[in-house]
Amino acid sequence: MYVDLGNGLASVASPGVSRDSLERLDERVAGAHERIERGRGEEEFGYAALNLPQETDASAIEEAVAPLSGTESVLTVGIGGSALGAATISGALGLSDTYVLDNVDPARTRDTLSSLDLADTAMHVVSRSGTTVETLANFLVVREAFEQEGVDWTERTIVTTGEDGPLRTLADRHDLPTLAAPEGVPGRFAALSSVGLVPAAIRGADIEGMLAGAWEGTDMGDIEGSLFETPAYAYGAATYALCERGASVNAMMPYAEDLECFAEWFAQLWAESLGKDGLGQIPARAMGATDQHSQLQLYRAGPRNTMVTLVRPRERPEHTIPETDFGSLSYLGGESLGGLIDAEFEATEASLAAAGRPSIRVEIDRLDARGVGDLLYGMELACVLVGELMGVETFAQPAVEWGKRATRGLLGAEGDFEEAEAVGEKSRLAVSPDR
Amino acid sequence: MYVDLGNGLASVASPGVSRDSLERLDERVAGAHERIERGRGEEEFGYAALNLPQETDASAIEEAVAPLSGTESVLTVGIGGSALGAATISGALGLSDTYVLDNVDPARTRDTLSSLDLADTAMHVVSRSGTTVETLANFLVVREAFEQEGVDWTERTIVTTGEDGPLRTLADRHDLPTLAAPEGVPGRFAALSSVGLVPAAIRGADIEGMLAGAWEGTDMGDIEGSLFETPAYAYGAATYALCERGASVNAMMPYAEDLECFAEWFAQLWAESLGKDGLGQIPARAMGATDQHSQLQLYRAGPRNTMVTLVRPRERPEHTIPETDFGSLSYLGGESLGGLIDAEFEATEASLAAAGRPSIRVEIDRLDARGVGDLLYGMELACVLVGELMGVETFAQPAVEWGKRATRGLLGAEGDFEEAEAVGEKSRLAVSPDR
Repeated sequence: MYVDLGNGLASVASPGVSRDSLERLDERVAGAHERIERGRGEEEFGYAALNLPQETDASAIEEAVAPLSGTESVLTVGIGGSALGAATISGALGLSDTYVLDNVDPARTRDTLSSLDLADTAMHVVSRSGTTVETLANFLVVREAFEQEGVDWTERTIVTTGEDGPLRTLADRHDLPTLAAPEGVPGRFAALSSVGLVPAAIRGADIEGMLAGAWEGTDMGDIEGSLFETPAYAYGAATYALCERGASVNAMMPYAEDLECFAEWFAQLWAESLGKDGLGQIPARAMGATDQHSQLQLYRAGPRNTMVTLVRPRERPEHTIPETDFGSLSYLGGESLGGLIDAEFEATEASLAAAGRPSIRVEIDRLDARGVGDLLYGMELACVLVGELMGVETFAQPAVEWGKRATRGLLGAEGDFEEAEAVGEKSRLAVSPDR
Repeated sequence: MYVDLGNGLASVASPGVSRDSLERLDERVAGAHERIERGRGEEEFGYAALNLPQETDASAIEEAVAPLSGTESVLTVGIGGSALGAATISGALGLSDTYVLDNVDPARTRDTLSSLDLADTAMHVVSRSGTTVETLANFLVVREAFEQEGVDWTERTIVTTGEDGPLRTLADRHDLPTLAAPEGVPGRFAALSSVGLVPAAIRGADIEGMLAGAWEGTDMGDIEGSLFETPAYAYGAATYALCERGASVNAMMPYAEDLECFAEWFAQLWAESLGKDGLGQIPARAMGATDQHSQLQLYRAGPRNTMVTLVRPRERPEHTIPETDFGSLSYLGGESLGGLIDAEFEATEASLAAAGRPSIRVEIDRLDARGVGDLLYGMELACVLVGELMGVETFAQPAVEWGKRATRGLLGAEGDFEEAEAVGEKSRLAVSPDR
């Protein structure tokens, strides 16, 4: 990962951070780095995620999925961190015929199932606890669909879950191939494990290359504890400094359609890890060049509360624009689509600078397995650094529990769910049309 | 559209708005309503958009697309407002085999073209000015692909553009069926015209019902100028009040996968219309129930700068969850997926209220043509109201021009583009890995 902070400097933008401030901040980065290294060394909860590129056993994953390789479609059933990593990796690598059920929307579930040839579909069910309501509901629905088609679902299913829980019990009972969700790693940090890699492995992608790209892209064998040396720390530290100075929103804007899901993955990583104790930074999502015709108006001329993260691969496939009979657009003929999107990337970066709005540039070599590993891991490390600098509990997510308990109560699960009662006490000020 | 402001009240949330403040604000809503009505009556630029449900000639669109009906795939080539409306409508109605090229990403363009049977594909090219670089580049690429497949592209292409410009000239030269982009309507407000309706019409969707749903859902024949009477004004006024009180971010969170693109459309509408003069509100996007496992942590426990807009259809298709052999999850058996997602909707709304965070509930009857028309038009009217209350130029987008000029300069278009020079003067602080 390559990071350029030039357009986040106070000499360019407001909010912006001065070089002097970055020098001072670098002392705190060094301290945070020591904390991170200790956590990694002791395999502490969460910090253990940063060892995944070395700990994940790619061969074991490849062996487990071997009976399913060559399958026409691959369906992931999970939610949140148990689905987004897989979707991000499949999307970024442009893997075809990979699908995700990560919601309990009856229309989407119906449409997905009706579009699949279940006799030629592999299903990956992912839930660390083995109790996730949405995932198990979808699993039950898909299993029934397999049965209705006369397909032996046990031949087409692979499970990733923890050491125990209902999903492990079920997998054992039906003798399903089962991979262990990594210990001590929250779902949103688990992309570079079986949780995120199984669909790519079924599709024959280079998952070893992805792990190597993660490790080597950040030079983790010999990492420096300085924002001026380590790109992921540069991104994290500058983002923290900009947030402190008023950039309460971080607009993630990749210039590659295949990174659309990456922006969503980043949003989860950033929101769930840092959104605590009244702190955090709001991730917004945009797509370059498309959203230059949309959200850019706001980022250039709206409130000074937003920084933009511009992401691109340095190399793209070639696609030449044909010569044209539009007189005024003849300059496009012979240009490449890649050249056009790269010109737009640089134009947008300059247009933000011209308006005095901060942006950070993040680049990878190309959108291949190594590049994707590099990008995901770099952002994870950046996020852990920001958590240290903010002083929040990066690896917890206490605020999502309330709603889970209320849902269970509303659905009549056994137990005492007082949260469900609060749902009935809703404050109302309803405005309806006259009809 | 049904709107419930109960959880945005100061008695529930901070930031929140008191009933007294809403009463006072309603006088300004009445004044803004008069301004809007005058603009509509005089067909002023932008305000004219609010007449589209009556002005759009559904039969003319249906007639123009008739030769293409029954086509296997429908491809829209446009960008920004010239693509998002079509994508939103196709997505919300669950129309299959509709595709969009709204970026100049060579990988995506290649993958899209290779997945299509061009001999059985209809192409809708949309550019009001007829000069949009990205759209014309993609058009040239797709046209070449048609030719390489030996398909007569002139038989498979329909154009929506303005009265003149290069695209109009080309359409005339090749005798293509051409629809007029509506006069005086910026692209982001043009979904309910040929700009947004053509793919749905090719697919045989009920576009007349959509226009009727827009008009009748807001009761535009007899609209009341009060936030307590008109749901779209309730949404707009409360959002404005919450923004004034610190909700600088609006997280749009539909509980329906088919509304994913709607959230993107809303983000453009909100960002490009209101992001001016240092004002505006940042649209963020989330998906219920999925993002309860992700961004909800931030919205409940992060900075008090966010309001959440919860959107759902009141009716959904049925899909029963099968009885289960997971002991602890037997309460799910016999429940429906729709019942589950609705329980999650109410649980999330209550969980935000329990944390003192503001939300607004928006509902439509169902995700059909009428409901989608109702929702899109309601949000457009709400946006126009917020623009009046903020005092910004809702229908302009001056800040996006700089980057367009820089891009043209970088690509060597004829003319004097001094913006391109600024691109070369980029401020740098690059951090690269050691390798």
